[in-house]
Amino acid sequence: MSKNLTQRSEDYSKWYNELVVKADLAENSGVRGCMVIKPYGYAIWEKMQRELDRMFKETGHQNAYFPLFVPKSMFEAEETNAEGFAKECAIVTHYRLKADETKPGKLMVDPNAKLEEELIVRPTSEAIIWSTYKSWVQSYRDLPLLINQWANVVRWEMRTRLFLRTAEFLWQEGHTAHATRQEAIEETEKMMNVYADFVENFMAIPVIKGIKTANERFAGADETYCIEALMQDGKALQAGTSHFLGQNFAKAFDVKFANAEGKQEYVWGTSWGVSTRLMGALVMTHSDDKGLVLPPNLAPIQVVIVPIHKTDEQLSAIGNVADELMAGLKARGISVKYDDRTTQKPGFKFNEYELKGVPLRIAIGPNDLENGTFEIARRDTLTKETVAMDNAVEYLATKLDEIQQSLFNRAMEYRNTHITEVDGFDEFKDLLESKGGFLSAHWDGTPETEEKIKELTKATIRCIPLDRVAEAGKCVFTGKPSAGRVLFAKAY
Amino acid sequence: MSKNLTQRSEDYSKWYNELVVKADLAENSGVRGCMVIKPYGYAIWEKMQRELDRMFKETGHQNAYFPLFVPKSMFEAEETNAEGFAKECAIVTHYRLKADETKPGKLMVDPNAKLEEELIVRPTSEAIIWSTYKSWVQSYRDLPLLINQWANVVRWEMRTRLFLRTAEFLWQEGHTAHATRQEAIEETEKMMNVYADFVENFMAIPVIKGIKTANERFAGADETYCIEALMQDGKALQAGTSHFLGQNFAKAFDVKFANAEGKQEYVWGTSWGVSTRLMGALVMTHSDDKGLVLPPNLAPIQVVIVPIHKTDEQLSAIGNVADELMAGLKARGISVKYDDRTTQKPGFKFNEYELKGVPLRIAIGPNDLENGTFEIARRDTLTKETVAMDNAVEYLATKLDEIQQSLFNRAMEYRNTHITEVDGFDEFKDLLESKGGFLSAHWDGTPETEEKIKELTKATIRCIPLDRVAEAGKCVFTGKPSAGRVLFAKAY
Repeated sequence: MSKNLTQRSEDYSKWYNELVVKADLAENSGVRGCMVIKPYGYAIWEKMQRELDRMFKETGHQNAYFPLFVPKSMFEAEETNAEGFAKECAIVTHYRLKADETKPGKLMVDPNAKLEEELIVRPTSEAIIWSTYKSWVQSYRDLPLLINQWANVVRWEMRTRLFLRTAEFLWQEGHTAHATRQEAIEETEKMMNVYADFVENFMAIPVIKGIKTANERFAGADETYCIEALMQDGKALQAGTSHFLGQNFAKAFDVKFANAEGKQEYVWGTSWGVSTRLMGALVMTHSDDKGLVLPPNLAPIQVVIVPIHKTDEQLSAIGNVADELMAGLKARGISVKYDDRTTQKPGFKFNEYELKGVPLRIAIGPNDLENGTFEIARRDTLTKETVAMDNAVEYLATKLDEIQQSLFNRAMEYRNTHITEVDGFDEFKDLLESKGGFLSAHWDGTPETEEKIKELTKATIRCIPLDRVAEAGKCVFTGKPSAGRVLFAKAY
Repeated sequence: MSKNLTQRSEDYSKWYNELVVKADLAENSGVRGCMVIKPYGYAIWEKMQRELDRMFKETGHQNAYFPLFVPKSMFEAEETNAEGFAKECAIVTHYRLKADETKPGKLMVDPNAKLEEELIVRPTSEAIIWSTYKSWVQSYRDLPLLINQWANVVRWEMRTRLFLRTAEFLWQEGHTAHATRQEAIEETEKMMNVYADFVENFMAIPVIKGIKTANERFAGADETYCIEALMQDGKALQAGTSHFLGQNFAKAFDVKFANAEGKQEYVWGTSWGVSTRLMGALVMTHSDDKGLVLPPNLAPIQVVIVPIHKTDEQLSAIGNVADELMAGLKARGISVKYDDRTTQKPGFKFNEYELKGVPLRIAIGPNDLENGTFEIARRDTLTKETVAMDNAVEYLATKLDEIQQSLFNRAMEYRNTHITEVDGFDEFKDLLESKGGFLSAHWDGTPETEEKIKELTKATIRCIPLDRVAEAGKCVFTGKPSAGRVLFAKAY
């Protein structure tokens, strides 16, 4: 199978598309722009969900569920937000089909079942949620509201790619309401940090924390914080965003509270989300020409055991050893699969688990039985070694930790060697084509310049890094004064 | 608060609606027929999800995710299914809004953004899933497919009630494919049994397992198995269904496999689901005039501790005792909350936790500190006792088990005393009005009689019980011969 995989150096984009399908993560469906997330892909997403959900609850958030549909009048209440999403939304206009009398067995939209008001399939839920918060908030005692929702959303994208850009995707969206501006900003920053922690420590993907420029800001937000990751082809990927909404939605939906002095004030809001897009980041950060490489934290199968045998007696003896090893691994919380299919040869199985990114593969043969050993192959480094069966569980647990850390280090090294300070526009264009990555450059702070650079190079400002140092300089494009560097990149 | 709750004997339906809102489970939204599931309600749903998900995985199923939308041509492929859902589906016809030039700040559907083919918001996912299975199944080696999806679905109901009947609801839907008819039937029955196990042992709601008549069968199924529960007002509630789909969807979507002899055969299918409707069953089975009564397995808070104090010193001393108790309970896996708000009196808190159905409430006062005791109040029986602090954790754990069992027993006793054998139609009508419950009666087996009885009495055949005994008799309505009794009831 893996021999059929396009190599990254040949065509990175094709490699990605093929890998997602061949590794059984997802596939295109019969519905334009919508994907099917297959069981193996969904198992990874479930692991992400479980960890994120734990982190949200630990930081005081509760889950709830709000409607899929947003009536048009509600949708348009916050004008900037509505404008931002109006061009790409699915609209329900009717509520019944009827038999098409001209075509036996076919159905048609019943023209008598037109809705009085059109319903928008949520592209994001600020409108529906803030219209609800109005009745939940009267006094400062009702604040903060710290709520998260796991849901599907729809954005009518014209060009779609599995996980990276699909018409429907799965995500979580946090929506919080606060009594003060300061508290809302702290929440926005806290959730950006939760995302960074998750993406770095759980997904082994290093990120840069920053703030979006006005051009790239969420429609309806006063400020958008983001975490930006770098893929192996030198393109950036926005891995999560956290928005400070100011009082925009509170004003649009008239959400006020009585403060401690009894005075009416508008509530301050935030929203934050990550989506199945993270699956794309996962694939593109770690995987190689042989297939997926999964960080142990996210691998549905962390260890696979393949028996190497000629006779049934050998298989049975290996089975006994494998059973004991599996029991030990399971007790240690490590997920393990024993693949004793006799319909497939070991070589076939090796390829399959390489394609699927299983972090550790164990082979046990007759010699191993005699010597009390097994062979272990690391997916990330493609290295093998023979180790003693004694103390195997501890050894494997340590290896998994090592792989998790090593994947992060490798991605971090790639990322760090792909941030380049650039001061001239020709160099900017050259570097963007030759090496890619983040270009750290001065910018005059205007949306016009940002737009012009995007037109000319397809690079956008990914973020103004939170840790940037003040440095007087000249805009890489206009030469006008700048107070510090921002990060440009082509992006997914 | 609870003093404002309508009593069940006054108006059961009003009691239910009020309770769902007052106990913070859910509320109506600004979108017709769609509900908001509030954090407390969602926390209960999450507990259901977690347990069901565990049970599905234990029985070999994997989760996946399929698109929200179904193109019309795909929707209509299985004609019986399409007909069954055509009258109540939300239809997406456009994919863009634009500025309404006649109304500043308002948006309108862009007539230039009409879809070539309408998309149906899934009312159920057989069509989209079977259209996908076509490419997943070639050989008998690819079978069985054992897949589950957690998702939202939309059915355009005209009269809606929180949890019981909403335009959008949350559910899980299993969709499996098998090589043989026998295996598919076994799967259908297995999942009905999983549901019965869950609803009885986790939700403490007794159910009757049975088969639906043709009239009540899922559109597109050859056989629908169901579990039926009985609410406190004598009306039945279908708590879960499991459908044997025969080869209907395989034929509609041309899903064939090569059997071991290399011959092409159509695949056999099942589907099965339970939904947020179970929340309604939960409320209506156990709760009382003071509010929710939650089985400990489903209670987000299983034990609440309320300090009774006059001075800050007392509060602090009680806090120390509570801390220790909480640590012990948490270590035992019991969820506990300590409510030391000083803004509310104990009586207010007692009412609040009664309303919210917390199974055990503990009060600790200064006397308790002296005596090494605490007061414990059971929500289900509304009884109190004073017990020693020594060994408190074990005592409380035992109490929780006792409550879980006791709720089931109470519901079972109610159910058992509300199944009545009836042989005459006058008695049938009388009993239906005076007592309700399941009426076990003979039926001549025709859809016409079933329809007629429904017209006259609003009672439907809830199921043909799996454990019914063969008994020759005469139809309660027509007097024609019958081979055994079926269960009639008015139903939600």
